[in-house]
Formats: sequence, structure tokens, C-alpha cells
Amino acid sequence: MTTVTHEHVLAAARRIAGHVLRTPVIQISPGLWLKLELLQHAGSFKVRGAFNRILSAGRLPDSGVIAASGGNHGLAVAYAARALGVRAEIYVPEVTSPVKVDGLRALGAHIVQTGAIYSEAADAAAKRAAETGALSVHAYDQAEVVAGQGTTGLELVEQVGAASTGAPDPAQGPALDTVLVAVGGGGFAAGITLGTATPGSGSGPKIVAVEPERIPTLNAALQAGEPVQVEVGGVGADALGASKIGGLAFEVLSGPRVESVLVTDEAIVSARRTLWERHRLAAEHAGAAAYAALLSGAYRPEPGERVAVVVCGSNTDPATLTTS
Amino acid sequence: MTTVTHEHVLAAARRIAGHVLRTPVIQISPGLWLKLELLQHAGSFKVRGAFNRILSAGRLPDSGVIAASGGNHGLAVAYAARALGVRAEIYVPEVTSPVKVDGLRALGAHIVQTGAIYSEAADAAAKRAAETGALSVHAYDQAEVVAGQGTTGLELVEQVGAASTGAPDPAQGPALDTVLVAVGGGGFAAGITLGTATPGSGSGPKIVAVEPERIPTLNAALQAGEPVQVEVGGVGADALGASKIGGLAFEVLSGPRVESVLVTDEAIVSARRTLWERHRLAAEHAGAAAYAALLSGAYRPEPGERVAVVVCGSNTDPATLTTS
Repeated sequence: MTTVTHEHVLAAARRIAGHVLRTPVIQISPGLWLKLELLQHAGSFKVRGAFNRILSAGRLPDSGVIAASGGNHGLAVAYAARALGVRAEIYVPEVTSPVKVDGLRALGAHIVQTGAIYSEAADAAAKRAAETGALSVHAYDQAEVVAGQGTTGLELVEQVGAASTGAPDPAQGPALDTVLVAVGGGGFAAGITLGTATPGSGSGPKIVAVEPERIPTLNAALQAGEPVQVEVGGVGADALGASKIGGLAFEVLSGPRVESVLVTDEAIVSARRTLWERHRLAAEHAGAAAYAALLSGAYRPEPGERVAVVVCGSNTDPATLTTS
Repeated sequence: MTTVTHEHVLAAARRIAGHVLRTPVIQISPGLWLKLELLQHAGSFKVRGAFNRILSAGRLPDSGVIAASGGNHGLAVAYAARALGVRAEIYVPEVTSPVKVDGLRALGAHIVQTGAIYSEAADAAAKRAAETGALSVHAYDQAEVVAGQGTTGLELVEQVGAASTGAPDPAQGPALDTVLVAVGGGGFAAGITLGTATPGSGSGPKIVAVEPERIPTLNAALQAGEPVQVEVGGVGADALGASKIGGLAFEVLSGPRVESVLVTDEAIVSARRTLWERHRLAAEHAGAAAYAALLSGAYRPEPGERVAVVVCGSNTDPATLTTS
């Protein structure tokens, strides 16, 4: 039994219902579905974890919530805090682009730019949280965050089941064999593993955990037998840039249902272009990583295998959809 | 009884199933849904009519199909023809941008660039069709095209009904009160009017037919009591640029369920930006026109009114989503 369970994901779904978008699923060919989590509020799945963490906390101090992130997580915490009428303080490193800072400010967050790199901003946020008592919302390594993010998996199982023709035949097992999902800190992939699990059993669809070759946090951890630091680089670094897999995520993702797959930056760039040209989806690079595993052949389904791909983020400059 | 009926739309749905995407619906606030027809194959609803027209024709001559359009309709006919293994000849005026010609060519269509303006290309296509016997696919004013496009409405009623909580109460009427849809030649709005009709009765949700102020084909026809020529201009002209409402469409859209509403170009530009910034949808201007009516207050729902907006096209340069 892992620290976070399917039941935690079910509880999260009840808690955050009405606050997050039930993102749609499209069937793009026989046996292949895309879960359009990139259409989520604030442009990524991160709001699911942010809402669940904040709503689980009960009454908050006046200092509200605090997080460190110049990217999707920061936007999500700022979005959720505004929606709930809570103060949000977001720590970002000094190098954060003015566009991102403006985006956070537009959501009403109080921005503190400090530290040369992300970890220095994160340290400053932790120190500040200890002073003010603000609720810290981690990007991936908190139980409420993993459970909230996992609600994407619950929806996916329901949606693909409902879309399958005819009444489901229990003897045939679930409507979905495999889910491809990107891994950064691993909270999302772990949550989806839990959320798609068959209640009351350890079974469920295979989870293909996709990482850029240049940020193999899970792959390296599986080889080492424990979370280890990796170098971070490449096109997915702005959103999949954790340098070590989360401890909660590793508990889940080291289990038997999970297969680790790596993709090249070229495959990610190509998949992102395909998502735009063929499906009119404006994904960020990290959001296209899972689809890249399928298109590049890094993961090859068996004939008849029923596969869903989670397209998980759209915080990108649309001008780059046709140029990079 | 109009020339095209709800039953024709039902037949079209059976005919084109598997060829077109069942586009998703998202609920963005209580009582407000967006139908994401912009995610359709070839980037707009036009493929629904193209498939239905071609599949209704039985055996085609070797000359295949022919259409005149440098825009969404041309892309849709080229896409459908390729999918069905049929030859497609697309006539476009000489001014058509190389990007659009390349897009059509990439879908395997034979391109003929002729005529200074659209109507000259259309005349040349009609002459050619008479010579070769190719099946002409009109952008809006053919029964099979209207019926095919109307399948969007069938899906919408099913999807919003299924998304409503609890079992539907027949005494409460349909789950949907109002559908906002853009009008160019009117085939899409007419099809949706028919597709959303309650079978066996003349009733159904109100259809708010939205046109740019600068291309009021339906509005002018309703005032004149018959289809009349209008001037064409403004940001929606590339996709809503018909200069006269279709005869089949006027039959339907002059009925009691339809309300004509005009929007400014400024409202369209603003709605398109909102669709990107808030919902990460990359709509073309015409595709944002219906939503513009709601956001600008050109159409104001009553409290509790359950409204769906069809976002119908995405053939746009994504670089312009944040700049124009």
C-alpha cells in the first residue's frame, strides 16, 4: 500500500468538483484517445493538485498560500487561490521572464523575485512560509497534490469507458489498456496510476511514464533503486525540469504497472507540431512528450491495444507552434 | 416542412460516422458549454458536409469531386476526398495565399488557380464540372452539405444532455435552451437548427445566428424577406465571406426558432483572444464570432438559461492569437 491511494484520488475528485474543468477526451483513431488536459484552467493539470491541497487544509491563516514556481505550478496556485479568495505569494527566481511574472500578477498573486536559480527561490519560500504560517503548496511531492492531479485518471477511465460502443463487458476487462503520461517530478504520473487503478485491486491499465532523454528523473531512479539527482536540459525543461523524482511519486511509479520510456527532444518537437497541424491543439513541449513516445515508436502498442495519451499543458507562445 | 429535415441530419450522422471527429464539449461555467468544433479534422465543421455529400453520391466518376474554395471548405473537400480515395480538384482564385495552396496540395488535391476573385474561380469550377462529370461539392447550399453540417447539432444535444447532472426530467424540457452559431452562407446554422430540433415536433432550442456587422447575409435577408447580396468585409471575411445567404439555409433560418444577432469586428477580435487566453483554444476569427455575441452582450441570456456556443474553426496562424 502506497502513502497515497485510489481512495485519496476519489476524495480529491469530490473536493475539487466544480473548481476544475472536466477536460474532454477525443478519439483520434480506433483504439487511440487523447485526454485534453491542456485545456484545463491555467493551462495545465496543476490546478487539480493546487485546489485539492488548499481545500484539504481547512481554515487558512491570513497569509494564505505560498508556492515557488515561475511556471505551470505557479500559475495554478495563483489561479486556485484567486478562485477561492485566498492570498497567494509566489516565489520565482530573478531570471523568470517578465511575461511569466505578468501572467502571475494578472491572476492577483503577490510575486517575490529572489535567487539566481529555482532552488534559491524555493528555499526563500520555505523560510517565508515558516515565518508567516502560509500553507505551502508543492508542485508534486505532497499527498494532496498527487491525489488531486490523479483525478485526471479517474475522468479518463470514465470517459473512455463511456465512449466505447455498447455496454461494457466486465469479462473483457477495462476499456483502456494503456495510458501514456509525461513525468517531471512524477506527481501527475503517480496520481494517474492511482486514479486509473481498478478499485479494490492492484490492477489497472499499464502506465507508460514518458520522460525526455535529457531529464530522466524516473528512469534514473528506477535504475538506482531510489530517487537520484539528474542533469536537467532540453526543450521540456521549463515544465518537466524537476531534478529528482518526488518521493511519493517514486513509491507509486516503481510499481509493476509502470513502464519507463525516454524520448528525444526531436521527437517532442515533432509531436508538438503534429498536435497543432493535425489536431489544432496548442501544446507546450512538455505537454507533447507523452504523444511523442507513441509517434516516434519509443512506445509501440500491440495490435488492438487501447491507448490513451494525456496532453497535459498549453502554457506556450502560440507563435512558436509552427516554427519550433 | 423545409427541404432539408431532422431526418436528413440523422441519416447524415449514420453515413459519416467514423469519418469525422465527435468533437468534445466543455462546460466552462454553470449553464454554459462550448462545442469544440474547431478541433474537427481539417480544422472546421466543413468536413461533415463534404463527407455526407460525397458518401451520398454512390459511385463517382474517375474525375472525382470538385469544389471552389481557398479556405475551410477547400481543405475539407480535399481532406474528405483523400480519406475516401477520391480525386479532388479545388479551384481557387489567383490571389489565394501560397500557404493555403500548399495546405491544399499537402492533402493531395489538384489545385487550379484561376480568376481574380472567388466568383470567377467558382464559375470556372462549375464549367469544369460540367465537362468532366465530377461531383460538385458546394460550401453550403446543397441538401447533403446542410444535413452533414447539422450533425454537429445532434452531437451537441446528446453531449449536453449527458453532461447534465441526474436523469433528465422530460417535464423540464431539453437540457439546452439556446445555441449560438456563426453564419456565413448559413448552411452550418441551418443544419444545427435542424439537428437540434426535437424529433417529431417543430420545437427545439433557440438558435442565435451570429454574423459580423460587416457581412450580414442573414440579417439583410430577413429584413428583405428573401436572400439578397451584401457587401463583404472585416475580420471574418475569409471564412464567413459569402455575399448572400444560401437558399436552403434561408428556408430554415427564417423560421421561428432563429434569432439574428450582429457583432462588431472588435467583439470578434476580443472573443478570439479570450478563447486563447482563458481556454487555450486557437480559433480563427470566424470561429470566435458566436462567442463574441455572448461576451459583448449582443446576446444576453436570461438568468438560468442553458447556453451552448459553437466554436467552429481553427484555420488560423497561431502567431496571431496574441497579437491581433
